[in-house]
Amino acid sequence: MSIARTFWETLEARDWEAFGAVVIDDVVAWWPQSRERVRGREALVRFMAEFPGDWHLRVERDHVDSTGAATLIAFTSGGETVSGATFFELASDGRISGFTEFWPEPYEPPAGREHLVDRVPA
Amino acid sequence: MSIARTFWETLEARDWEAFGAVVIDDVVAWWPQSRERVRGREALVRFMAEFPGDWHLRVERDHVDSTGAATLIAFTSGGETVSGATFFELASDGRISGFTEFWPEPYEPPAGREHLVDRVPA
Repeated sequence: MSIARTFWETLEARDWEAFGAVVIDDVVAWWPQSRERVRGREALVRFMAEFPGDWHLRVERDHVDSTGAATLIAFTSGGETVSGATFFELASDGRISGFTEFWPEPYEPPAGREHLVDRVPA
Repeated sequence: MSIARTFWETLEARDWEAFGAVVIDDVVAWWPQSRERVRGREALVRFMAEFPGDWHLRVERDHVDSTGAATLIAFTSGGETVSGATFFELASDGRISGFTEFWPEPYEPPAGREHLVDRVPA
């Protein structure tokens, strides 16, 4: 199993010891949209363990190569499902040294491209 | 060069013939945030060629494996730079058969996690 998938599966399992083991001590998590950063395994495990709600996640895409990894997850909480896009950096031992994560929100399409685009009903 | 990087570099070059050659005839582009879909090479090339503004892009992450690819790009237009996260499906001949793309926007962090998080100035 890829390290990125193990990251998500141990998180979904709330297996904090196994989750902590997939990241390096000095892991850095970065959410550019809110400009929030979490540094270090202990803070990251607490961040995830304290995350509110009865949430669940499912890995939809998982691409790993020698330079890192990217995943797309479906994250469900309170009956709502949203997408999360995560780009991982890997340490030389294969563990996760950092990640950059995005939580895109719906927006209205700009005008002027209706002739090329279908809008799919929700 | 990876097929995903070629996709972006031919787009940046406005080399529509080369851009069209990296996707299959029936390529499907999907933007879940606006629920917009573009079907087919011709429509996709027109969509990109008609995209307004003097835009430029740079590939920041590029991960490809046997099941597909993911990229993170920095897209600049009108002096503003935003991030785009794209997940590509590949046809058996290696060309791009589809992609799902996200354009995340800034948001304010939720309360309650200040004890674990640094906020990085813009």
